[in-house]
Parts: sequence; structure tokens; C-alpha cells
Amino acid sequence: MTLTGVVADRDSWSAERCSLDRAFAVIGTRSAVLLMREAYYGATRFDDFVARTGLTDASAAARLKDLVAEGLLERRPYREPGQRSRSEYALTQAGAELLPAILGLFNWGDAHLAGRDGGPPLALSHANCGAAVSTTVRCADGHEVGLDEIEVTARR
Amino acid sequence: MTLTGVVADRDSWSAERCSLDRAFAVIGTRSAVLLMREAYYGATRFDDFVARTGLTDASAAARLKDLVAEGLLERRPYREPGQRSRSEYALTQAGAELLPAILGLFNWGDAHLAGRDGGPPLALSHANCGAAVSTTVRCADGHEVGLDEIEVTARR
Repeated sequence: MTLTGVVADRDSWSAERCSLDRAFAVIGTRSAVLLMREAYYGATRFDDFVARTGLTDASAAARLKDLVAEGLLERRPYREPGQRSRSEYALTQAGAELLPAILGLFNWGDAHLAGRDGGPPLALSHANCGAAVSTTVRCADGHEVGLDEIEVTARR
Repeated sequence: MTLTGVVADRDSWSAERCSLDRAFAVIGTRSAVLLMREAYYGATRFDDFVARTGLTDASAAARLKDLVAEGLLERRPYREPGQRSRSEYALTQAGAELLPAILGLFNWGDAHLAGRDGGPPLALSHANCGAAVSTTVRCADGHEVGLDEIEVTARR
């Protein structure tokens, strides 16, 4: 990265309102990451989230509440015949938009950690064409962008 | 996402060797994320990492050691004239490859949290063409891939 303009002197500014730091404050717990993973895999019901993440009921409940409060999931009532009303959790647009970050981490784990015991367990592919899916850094003009090609400037 | 093949029944398997969970175990602390941010911004020296992240010396030192052990940073000696030898920390290839995940989180924070007090502080652009840089989910054939277009299968 190249820091340009008023941010060029990295000693002259602090990243007080850093969007990365703020995002990490919302999603930076193991329980939040695993619950979002399961939401992407299709889980909507509390019991499924618990069974598939291995979290305790208390931990899953508290974190789902946080994720609803932060706008990543939406709580909706449902009722099965003869049962009391329960809640299910659906991805919001903001929750779906976290996918690049979560998938980026997933890709990195596949590339750098999964080799330790036999390679990545899962393959993600594009349903339409079958090609492998991954997170990439691009510009709005569609170029793939390397770390050394990114320019950082202050917006205001 | 659509789970297909042997993973189609989400109740029949557990994500024991989940690459996402493993990656989060390596990078899922605020201190690790902030140190990687500064490495991307160009920091190499211990005092710079401390000053720019606001971490304590002890916390920064412990986490830098972890990041070196996990292969994201590389420790190298340097010596300024008349000073004792010190260490600097350089990004490795594995560290550079975490960029999509970190940038994905940064983008998400910009889009969903920065509006609360006046918008994103920083702009990231492609040095070659000036277009905004972001993390996107794509397949190897270059298509942009939506969450509902991803197919998940077991590799073995």
C-alpha cells in the first residue's frame, strides 16, 4: 500500500475511526464467525445453530442477539403445527455483505492451514459454471489489485 | 449457498477441520488484526507497530511473536549506525495473502458502520487506474458470485 496526501506521514494521524477495527468489534469473536458461517450454510433455527457450531445454548443465544442488534441477522417468528411460537434468524443484506470477509478467511485457512492434515475438507464452486470460488481484491474497473498497487488517501 | 453431495445433509457432518475456524484461531484477535493492518500500511519496526495500533508493548510483542510463528510475518535483524541490533517484521507471502479477508472486513465497516459519524475516513484506490478497491467474491472464470450461487461439496 502507498499512503498518499495527508495520510502519507503515518506518524501524523491515528486510525481512531478505523473501519476495520470497528468491524472487528462487531464480528471479531469465534462465536459470531461460526454463527455467520452457519447462516451462510442455511441455518435459521436456534437448535441448528447450536448443534452445528458446538457453542453452548447461552453463548449462541447471546451472540445471536448481538448479531441481530448489529443488523447482520433478522429475528422472525415462526410456529410449527401444535408447537409454541419460536424465532428464526435470517441473513440481512448487511449480513450477506460480510461474505467476502468470511470467505477470505476461509480461503486463507484452506491455503495455509488445511495442508497440515490432508488438505481442505470442502470445495466452494460457482453453481453456474463449476469454477472454484474465492475472495479477490479488485478495483471498480475490474482489475485484480495487488497489495503494492493500493493507494490510501484521506476522504476528508 | 447450496450444500451438495455428502455434505447436503447438514445434520450428518460437523465442521471439525473448518478452515474458517482455524484461520480465526490464528488471526481472530484485535491485536493481530491491527498489527496486520499496520504491516499493510508499511510498518516494520516494533515502535511503529506500538505507536500506530495503541497496543501496549507487551501485547504487541506477544502478538508479533505469534504472527511470526504462524508465518504471517518474518522477523529480520537490522542495525542503525551506533545502535544495537534490533528486529523488524516483514510481511510474508502468507501474510500478504490475508489481505482479502482484512480488506473485506474493512469494506464492511466502511459500508455499515462508518455512516454513524460522517462516512469512511479513508479511500483505497488502484494506483494504476484510480478506481476504488474492494474485496469481491469471484469464481476462477471471473464471474462475480452471489451467496446463493455458491455450491459447497466435500473434497474427500
